[in-house]
Amino acid sequence: MSASSQIPQRSTPTQDSVRRQNLGALLRYVHVSGDTSRAELTSQLGLNRSTIGALTADLAGAGLIDEGVPLETGRAGRPSLVVRPRSSRVYGYALSIEVDRLRAARVGLGGKILDSRELPRPRGTAVRDTLATLAGFIDDMRRTGSAAGSADAVFVGSGIAVSRMMRHADGVVRMLPPGAALDAADDLGLDRPPVAGNVADLAALAEHTRGAAAGLDNVIYLHGDASISAGIIAGGRRVTGHGGHGGEVGHMVVDPQGLACGCGSRGCWETEIARHVSLDRDAVTACVEAARLGDPSARDAVRRAADWLGFGVANLVNIFNPTAVVFGGALRALYLAGAAHVRGRLSTTALPACRDHVRLRTPLLGDDAPLVGAAELAFERLLADPLETAES
Amino acid sequence: MSASSQIPQRSTPTQDSVRRQNLGALLRYVHVSGDTSRAELTSQLGLNRSTIGALTADLAGAGLIDEGVPLETGRAGRPSLVVRPRSSRVYGYALSIEVDRLRAARVGLGGKILDSRELPRPRGTAVRDTLATLAGFIDDMRRTGSAAGSADAVFVGSGIAVSRMMRHADGVVRMLPPGAALDAADDLGLDRPPVAGNVADLAALAEHTRGAAAGLDNVIYLHGDASISAGIIAGGRRVTGHGGHGGEVGHMVVDPQGLACGCGSRGCWETEIARHVSLDRDAVTACVEAARLGDPSARDAVRRAADWLGFGVANLVNIFNPTAVVFGGALRALYLAGAAHVRGRLSTTALPACRDHVRLRTPLLGDDAPLVGAAELAFERLLADPLETAES
Repeated sequence: MSASSQIPQRSTPTQDSVRRQNLGALLRYVHVSGDTSRAELTSQLGLNRSTIGALTADLAGAGLIDEGVPLETGRAGRPSLVVRPRSSRVYGYALSIEVDRLRAARVGLGGKILDSRELPRPRGTAVRDTLATLAGFIDDMRRTGSAAGSADAVFVGSGIAVSRMMRHADGVVRMLPPGAALDAADDLGLDRPPVAGNVADLAALAEHTRGAAAGLDNVIYLHGDASISAGIIAGGRRVTGHGGHGGEVGHMVVDPQGLACGCGSRGCWETEIARHVSLDRDAVTACVEAARLGDPSARDAVRRAADWLGFGVANLVNIFNPTAVVFGGALRALYLAGAAHVRGRLSTTALPACRDHVRLRTPLLGDDAPLVGAAELAFERLLADPLETAES
Repeated sequence: MSASSQIPQRSTPTQDSVRRQNLGALLRYVHVSGDTSRAELTSQLGLNRSTIGALTADLAGAGLIDEGVPLETGRAGRPSLVVRPRSSRVYGYALSIEVDRLRAARVGLGGKILDSRELPRPRGTAVRDTLATLAGFIDDMRRTGSAAGSADAVFVGSGIAVSRMMRHADGVVRMLPPGAALDAADDLGLDRPPVAGNVADLAALAEHTRGAAAGLDNVIYLHGDASISAGIIAGGRRVTGHGGHGGEVGHMVVDPQGLACGCGSRGCWETEIARHVSLDRDAVTACVEAARLGDPSARDAVRRAADWLGFGVANLVNIFNPTAVVFGGALRALYLAGAAHVRGRLSTTALPACRDHVRLRTPLLGDDAPLVGAAELAFERLLADPLETAES
């Protein structure tokens, strides 16, 4: 029996590693929270004023932050300097290969989208055949971007969100072979391949970092995009499973006598919902709008789909005891139209102890969540070691 | 938006906190791995030989470890000293309130059960009415234990595993109101209340620390004991949810047209299994034995129950992408008798990417897993700060 996997290797931290850790903690704080006074940093990071002063000087010297006097303090005395992330100069590229569209953005430190491009993804386009389009997006943003070319700009890397499902030319949605996206990510005209994650997982990361689930440690983000995947945060950490394939909640069987699913099984959650309302973004919007205008069959479809939605959510609530469930992608509109049915099913089907504190929400970042999450991946290296990364 | 929950508060580590961390890491290593040479500790903990020497001297001085020459080295030269946990002298109490029995054990450092007591739990006994029995167990082990009274014994604390389900006098199994166990845990004749967890969660902890799931970071332990609960480990960490109520996988709905369940819902996973084979330990054993002897209705019941078991496992595999699923409690016998059906359902129902690396296992610690897990809770304080705890 080996204990090595349970016991982190520890060595005595050096002064250098402590400084690196503190620089990362300070930069992460302003990346997540935005403009922050030195006084708040002192109290939040548990460091003394002179240490905060030295750290901010280092980060400002590397071009990662600015410091300035706050516009208004409302208090007497000398105001505490405000530390600001240099969002327009410190940036990464975020890419997103979704079922029905391709997107790219230049995202600044602090999670700010500075520029973006988008095109529909033609049916049946393999992931590797989307890369030329994405490379073109990056090229175009490089040429037109004011910051990117300037001498003091800091490029931190790139991240990519990939939908594991794709719509083939025959209209059927199938799961990508694992690794397909990662193998193909070399060819974007970047020095280093982008860090990859799946769309639901990165949308969850974004909503947890700076969206509807900020400050909550147990979160299920459900992403509807032809299929349903979940990004799961438990105890403040992403749950991705052994090979990164966790979160395939759409293929949870909810009715063994249900419809045949493209995955080869029967009665999968997403298939039972989609028999009433197709999980394409446009189709959901159209159906919800028809229901709103009083079309009886659309109203019935929304009611049935929302009821199934509630079934699966109840199962996940029993399994995870989360504080929030966030309905993203195509599920946003379905949830908003059928919230009463979702809540009703949750209250009859989930155990009281598991559902008592759960909040049902829609994404604060809307459709940008996967892109913002991909950018979070791009920033990870900088936040782990700010000065080394900024200078490389 | 507050970032405080995402950013751990950091302060510069002092020499003292580094030493405490290293003492804890060394003691945890021998607690999990058993007898370990100084040479292995040096390489595994990333510390130099003189630091390891100083740490082992401190731990030996506090009576927590012994050092000695290994019996056989098979190599020339002076052998590296072997560090051994003092299992017979450093101990905690582990308690377990299960649906059908009450247990207590004295468990030594290293996870060794030194002594134990057990009685059936009469139907309908509330948790608080079991405490007198458990207090009697502890009292009895205290009086008869050789180590407990001696001058150099170190008592580290106690842990308790509590089944969240109870069988009422009418035979119906219902969920405990949350907190019932914790509120009632004051009265055991101990200086400090025991640290509490639920049975499945602690059995998972035990199997992950020193059992069938050692070294695996993504594990689902399924505990059958009138109902089905899961202990979930994701990314090496326990997933317990917001209020500690996660893992109620038995109430995942697998058939909306299924049987009414005691929880108020319909077609819950545990109810669909139990319509074929009751989830009592004795009932499962009897049914499996009858099937083995060729009884056709018992064989049919095992086949159907195992098929449902596989359904739920497939759902969990799609959600978590685990490396191992461990079948504990009453599920052990059912899984062993119906493994082919469980595997068959898994291969038709779970996505290939999610199930590719999953191993199906039975507990290495058998029925002791909840007790050993409760002991792990008892040892946590010692392992976090060995010298302070040993001297208090």
